Amino acid sequence: MISAAVVGGTGYTGAELLRLLAGHPQVELTAVTSRGSAGQAVAAMYPHLRGVVDLEFTEPGPQTLGGADVVFFATPNGTAMRMAEELLGAGARVIDLAADFRLHDPQVWKRYYGEAHACPALLEEAVYGLPEINRRAIAGARLVANPGCYPTAITLGFLPLLNAGVVERGTLVADAKSGISGAGRQARQATLLADAAENFRAYGVGAHRHRPEIVQTLNEACGSGHELLFVPHVIPMIRGLHATLYARLTAGDVDLQALFEDFYRDEPFVDVMPAGSHPETASVRGGNFCRLAVHRPGDGDTAVVLSVEDNLVKGAAGQAVQNMNIMFGFDETAGLAQAGVWP
Amino acid sequence: MISAAVVGGTGYTGAELLRLLAGHPQVELTAVTSRGSAGQAVAAMYPHLRGVVDLEFTEPGPQTLGGADVVFFATPNGTAMRMAEELLGAGARVIDLAADFRLHDPQVWKRYYGEAHACPALLEEAVYGLPEINRRAIAGARLVANPGCYPTAITLGFLPLLNAGVVERGTLVADAKSGISGAGRQARQATLLADAAENFRAYGVGAHRHRPEIVQTLNEACGSGHELLFVPHVIPMIRGLHATLYARLTAGDVDLQALFEDFYRDEPFVDVMPAGSHPETASVRGGNFCRLAVHRPGDGDTAVVLSVEDNLVKGAAGQAVQNMNIMFGFDETAGLAQAGVWP
Amino acid sequence: MISAAVVGGTGYTGAELLRLLAGHPQVELTAVTSRGSAGQAVAAMYPHLRGVVDLEFTEPGPQTLGGADVVFFATPNGTAMRMAEELLGAGARVIDLAADFRLHDPQVWKRYYGEAHACPALLEEAVYGLPEINRRAIAGARLVANPGCYPTAITLGFLPLLNAGVVERGTLVADAKSGISGAGRQARQATLLADAAENFRAYGVGAHRHRPEIVQTLNEACGSGHELLFVPHVIPMIRGLHATLYARLTAGDVDLQALFEDFYRDEPFVDVMPAGSHPETASVRGGNFCRLAVHRPGDGDTAVVLSVEDNLVKGAAGQAVQNMNIMFGFDETAGLAQAGVWP
Amino acid sequence: MISAAVVGGTGYTGAELLRLLAGHPQVELTAVTSRGSAGQAVAAMYPHLRGVVDLEFTEPGPQTLGGADVVFFATPNGTAMRMAEELLGAGARVIDLAADFRLHDPQVWKRYYGEAHACPALLEEAVYGLPEINRRAIAGARLVANPGCYPTAITLGFLPLLNAGVVERGTLVADAKSGISGAGRQARQATLLADAAENFRAYGVGAHRHRPEIVQTLNEACGSGHELLFVPHVIPMIRGLHATLYARLTAGDVDLQALFEDFYRDEPFVDVMPAGSHPETASVRGGNFCRLAVHRPGDGDTAVVLSVEDNLVKGAAGQAVQNMNIMFGFDETAGLAQAGVWP
Repeated sequence: MISAAVVGGTGYTGAELLRLLAGHPQVELTAVTSRGSAGQAVAAMYPHLRGVVDLEFTEPGPQTLGGADVVFFATPNGTAMRMAEELLGAGARVIDLAADFRLHDPQVWKRYYGEAHACPALLEEAVYGLPEINRRAIAGARLVANPGCYPTAITLGFLPLLNAGVVERGTLVADAKSGISGAGRQARQATLLADAAENFRAYGVGAHRHRPEIVQTLNEACGSGHELLFVPHVIPMIRGLHATLYARLTAGDVDLQALFEDFYRDEPFVDVMPAGSHPETASVRGGNFCRLAVHRPGDGDTAVVLSVEDNLVKGAAGQAVQNMNIMFGFDETAGLAQAGVWP
Repeated sequence: MISAAVVGGTGYTGAELLRLLAGHPQVELTAVTSRGSAGQAVAAMYPHLRGVVDLEFTEPGPQTLGGADVVFFATPNGTAMRMAEELLGAGARVIDLAADFRLHDPQVWKRYYGEAHACPALLEEAVYGLPEINRRAIAGARLVANPGCYPTAITLGFLPLLNAGVVERGTLVADAKSGISGAGRQARQATLLADAAENFRAYGVGAHRHRPEIVQTLNEACGSGHELLFVPHVIPMIRGLHATLYARLTAGDVDLQALFEDFYRDEPFVDVMPAGSHPETASVRGGNFCRLAVHRPGDGDTAVVLSVEDNLVKGAAGQAVQNMNIMFGFDETAGLAQAGVWP
Repeated sequence: MISAAVVGGTGYTGAELLRLLAGHPQVELTAVTSRGSAGQAVAAMYPHLRGVVDLEFTEPGPQTLGGADVVFFATPNGTAMRMAEELLGAGARVIDLAADFRLHDPQVWKRYYGEAHACPALLEEAVYGLPEINRRAIAGARLVANPGCYPTAITLGFLPLLNAGVVERGTLVADAKSGISGAGRQARQATLLADAAENFRAYGVGAHRHRPEIVQTLNEACGSGHELLFVPHVIPMIRGLHATLYARLTAGDVDLQALFEDFYRDEPFVDVMPAGSHPETASVRGGNFCRLAVHRPGDGDTAVVLSVEDNLVKGAAGQAVQNMNIMFGFDETAGLAQAGVWP
Repeated sequence: MISAAVVGGTGYTGAELLRLLAGHPQVELTAVTSRGSAGQAVAAMYPHLRGVVDLEFTEPGPQTLGGADVVFFATPNGTAMRMAEELLGAGARVIDLAADFRLHDPQVWKRYYGEAHACPALLEEAVYGLPEINRRAIAGARLVANPGCYPTAITLGFLPLLNAGVVERGTLVADAKSGISGAGRQARQATLLADAAENFRAYGVGAHRHRPEIVQTLNEACGSGHELLFVPHVIPMIRGLHATLYARLTAGDVDLQALFEDFYRDEPFVDVMPAGSHPETASVRGGNFCRLAVHRPGDGDTAVVLSVEDNLVKGAAGQAVQNMNIMFGFDETAGLAQAGVWP
């Protein structure tokens, strides 16, 4: 058993993390912090956790976070980078579900996140927590940067193609669609049910913060020179993310299905579906899986990859628990083996 | 042609009012005011009105509202009562879609709306704008209090029974359910899509502000002594309101279907469905209709009335336009005759 | 470890049962039958079960069902009553999630389900599987009739009041609302997304099959004479059921909150919320809980109980697993302890 | 006034056509046919048309369709091609909302629609009813093939780019998403609310029937050689279609915004939004508009066009009425000028 604390457990990602940690057989949840809600019972804010999480929100600080073996940050961007150093110094391992440690270059971070990075010294040490490419490094890490929801689905979808060198690196297109919980729980008109239900739209065409994160990862995993056109959209539903990926083939006779199946044969949470499949986001609702299908329409020169995940699980809290499992030597699927909830 | 101005056109009710007024053959929309959005094009906030409403939001004031023949208030409660007197003095007619002039007793108003009424002198003059009971008074009114969404559906459902004196007055129950646009466009966590979709809950059990409004109307229309238990719920959808009404029959041999059909025979916007029907909210989406069905389960001693409306149309903006039509001697259905949008 | 078979696992209830059984620590799932889909992999029909259930659908029969310790029927009404006797004879325990064994009187069954009962001899033996009232009998049962979704939420909501004798028995009203999965997976126009989303309606006012089931249970648990007016509605969402219950108080000074808390103090799956609460269906999504709140609006003479459950879990498959746990002496919460999935 | 008949008015497209025709100032609706529902009142099937359409469904045939000035087919594919010749011979004009007359080559039709074309002689005469490219031909047509929903949004989005010759013709990509009403009202499990809500998936990757229709239109309008990769998806909502279009620029210094604004300057139903916009499907709900925005992410070599429409209006019934207006010399916007319904 290890002790775990969650900083900032009042958003959708934080709530999902609490659900998963509460059901984890080797974790004791010892603190959940929130400056704004300190003193309130967690279960009063989140009735689905009544009887499951008996803690109150507390102020973050040495008393509440001090002794934890692992501290998760489910906070807005810019929070973990101000607290991580001290926690690491106290012996905790840190997993940040926000973006603070995802980009290696503090200049790029500043350009996309609007302020100078508060802790550039740790950027080099931080390990990008995508187990499918960094499992070994995660196992030895003190500080893990949990990937964004879009980067997880998109990177996992492109990876087999780019690793095999069978597609152009400079003309990648990711047309991605996310359920609205990806926008967070901050109250805004655009995410009200009456504004967002029965509605579909793109946003931030070409300028989303997740684009440099994806390109950085592809460049490190598969060599330099990757260019990505990334267009995100909002789906009128709560959970689920679907990335439709386009890559121009350079090799004519590759067996794409075999390529994908081989690449992910031993991965517990990446599921390559049979040829001709169209994965549904509902099939991963509440589960930590990324389901993939690869197509080659009309035997043409473009590979189309369909990649789905639950943005709050494999795209956030579930992947964070997966990283924790690797960091502490637990079975990688501990607390994460359950099927998605359908319908 | 008359000129119309809308004060506070930035919420759902305001937007719906703009849509209806823009399509009205005898109305020219001359001003839409919003303190917070003054200077912004209406169509920039509401792209569905591009090419339909070419105005900018302006500051409310004598210049913008002065010459209008009719001024609609689609503002929060407590706004119209501070501006109505001056507008009436300038010769405009006023229709308030909020609650400022719905309750006759300023003490009751204060208890339910939390502040002293700013203009009690006008409470007596104001006409409650439910055409089915007050058509004549509306025709001569300078100031109309447009009914709330729940009161419209509930009053219209109970009215034939209470008018005929065939049910108990003291044990009325209204179990009502509203689409979430009824909660307004102010950003709150509880009305975010991720919180409110795939969810159903009651709220304000027994304490909703619309209860005294309904009881007042029933007492005035059908005699004193009405008691109502009112339980509202939120439906995970945008538009539509369904009231399920329970009344204990005092007369055993009444033909309820005939009673309802006779009562509403000449009403253009109240539609009594055939015996055995279950009206759907989708059948009134975007239309100004209230559809009713009356049941007597198991030939027992309780009448069950099902009443549906679009909370933004017959429950708000459509009824306001209907009132305007009556006030200005237009055909009562002008600008309101179109069918609902289905599916 | 026991072996479990599921007959008719192709509907929503069947799929949910497979999810729960696959995650149960003391159950091995040995067969899932479907005449129509025999030979197809379960995971091909239900991608969310890929990697979790590795069986194929098979024809129901002695080979497939013979050796199972427990056989669940997730079939249409009228199926289990034709197979139960043989299975019991072979030594299996049987849990029917349909209605075949819920009503004790075969004449009533015939009236509501449209055909003569095929196995009236077992009606007396069958135990109504609502653990909160029949736990002891369930423990010794060979044949359990799993309650309907509405009866579970409504019975649990009325029970404390009726058991204490503080309300009238003859004027109970249940205004109930269910997510659309309660209508099953058979393809019909009325349950298509385009027909049913953004829509709300009542159905079967006063004539629903669940009414006699509820009355039978209340009469057995709390004495005779109960009369219920039951009006069901469809909510435009997948899962979740909300019952709003009205009962006229006969005792003026009862502490309803304490009454409910005491009554359910030791129940693992009934959660009485704090005074003034409005339980949300989303708080039980995917979980086996029934959450209750009791109100007395305006200190009047009516108690209002709000009762929520996931119709597919506590209202169907979860309760079936709970019954299995009791029948086989497992911890009653085995395989069911996880929190609901929110948002 | 002209008389109009609708063949096959029982689906979503048919119902929408009835709504629009019933509100058209120059049309009298004289017959609505349905073999399966003959004798039933239209308003009994579609309560939103109560008081608006007073016809019964009738059998299609010379008596019911004979005298109509215009006959609309809102039937499954393969119906109009068996009846059009006779109707044209009787002097009616015909607008087919299905696919029977969209493709010029009967061999291509057979390959995509699975049977030999029953009336190839009319394929040459039929005019493809996209007013923005064929307005003149539509005005003189006896037989109009109303475009598919995807082809309308996609063609209108690509047209300015291809007409100006500023993008490659051979590498077009259309990642399109449609509300589920596009799948029709035939009852299927995949389109049930419980299956389709809270879900997102692609389908028919690369093999959709609308692909050859789009390519044919682009080749005719802008010269030969167009190749299109088309990936459709289903959005969990009722109405609305969003196409995200990718085209590789061949000219570096083109002002895309000006190009689009100039191209559609005089079109009543194509709305080019300001630079940087992200059109929402909700902005066209129930309205006959196609809203477009054009982007050039990172000043790179790809143009991204966002194109939205209501699939049942500009993508089907509204465009059919627009075509009728052109064919009969009415104002092109007659009966179609109203704003969309929002929220």
